[in-house]
Amino acid sequence: MAESDQVTLLDLWASPFAMRVKIALAEKGIEFESREDDLSNKSPLLLEMNPVNKQIPVLIHNGKPVCESLIIVQYIDEVWTHKSPLLPRDPCQRAHARFWADYVDKKICSLGRMVWSAQEGAEKELIECFKLLEGELGDKPYFGGESLGFVDVALVPFLTWFSILEHCGNFSMVEECPTLVAWAHRCMEKESVSKSLPDLDKIFGYFMELKKKHEAKKNA
Amino acid sequence: MAESDQVTLLDLWASPFAMRVKIALAEKGIEFESREDDLSNKSPLLLEMNPVNKQIPVLIHNGKPVCESLIIVQYIDEVWTHKSPLLPRDPCQRAHARFWADYVDKKICSLGRMVWSAQEGAEKELIECFKLLEGELGDKPYFGGESLGFVDVALVPFLTWFSILEHCGNFSMVEECPTLVAWAHRCMEKESVSKSLPDLDKIFGYFMELKKKHEAKKNA
Repeated sequence: MAESDQVTLLDLWASPFAMRVKIALAEKGIEFESREDDLSNKSPLLLEMNPVNKQIPVLIHNGKPVCESLIIVQYIDEVWTHKSPLLPRDPCQRAHARFWADYVDKKICSLGRMVWSAQEGAEKELIECFKLLEGELGDKPYFGGESLGFVDVALVPFLTWFSILEHCGNFSMVEECPTLVAWAHRCMEKESVSKSLPDLDKIFGYFMELKKKHEAKKNA
Repeated sequence: MAESDQVTLLDLWASPFAMRVKIALAEKGIEFESREDDLSNKSPLLLEMNPVNKQIPVLIHNGKPVCESLIIVQYIDEVWTHKSPLLPRDPCQRAHARFWADYVDKKICSLGRMVWSAQEGAEKELIECFKLLEGELGDKPYFGGESLGFVDVALVPFLTWFSILEHCGNFSMVEECPTLVAWAHRCMEKESVSKSLPDLDKIFGYFMELKKKHEAKKNA
């Protein structure tokens, strides 16, 4: 990384997708400027930098935008190769990591939203997905093996949802998925994770407030 | 590639996702065995090789499975580096190509299905997406620049849907998106593409037959 590198993140404090990027940057030890955006009044910079999806996070590196959280994490891994490799070197293991990160994107996010908005049966399916992820983790400390990897970065922001999902879905994460909860605690011991995630009580309050508004709107 | 490499594709002739893999293998000049699967009676090999998603395509390389079409295409690009690079070398350009391939996955597939099943308003949104892709293509012969790249491989199988979409959505691709149609013709002149795609009339017949069954079931 050149001394003159300018790294800006178009950010949203409660977004697990933005958290992924912050964790990856912290793993690499890259300083960056966070610019909090406002989804109800998107900044001209966001609309300019991500005109197609108009979504955070966007990483702006020396003026050039990179969009979509998992694509940004791969970009970070490819640009800053000096430490903390996130994807393995072996193509087969890389494909395997990409598969599970994609699984998190396709399953955990949507099922999590369904549990949050109280859609019937969603918590059963979500728990099954978490159990499948526990199987993939196995005896390893991290999905990446001995150190935090691509799948860890993809999944760990969703631990901020654990207490929300327990509350909305009426189940206990530690009873259903003890291995995943232990993994989450292990991740939180890493500064790259703990400093990139918001206060868990604050995020619980935020999403419960949002749920109330969501339900009021639905019943209106 | 070692002489002893064994490459098998769990395949489905009408699947644009399987076509992506066949095009990438053809670009690299890799011989492979295609095993046609049956979605109504999935093979034990498919269930063993892709137990999570249970979907084709699966690439089996020396006994090891790689799943999800875009992940497979990246795998092929990383393993067989001797010719036809599909992703650019520059991390920023790589991220850009991944973004547009992801866009094809998220937008074109689902909107295409919506047009096919006659959901109101879908064709307008689909045409807008195609126009956005035309903007990204610009004056270049291919999305990859002077040669076929990752985004081309991601998108070009969907040209097999063009006449189906025109028919179901009641619009003319060549009138709405002449640049994209010209690009599709250019791609079809490449043997890697033309020999990996099924006969267009056959695929039209197949999806129209499927549509009839779909509607009969809906109205039953």
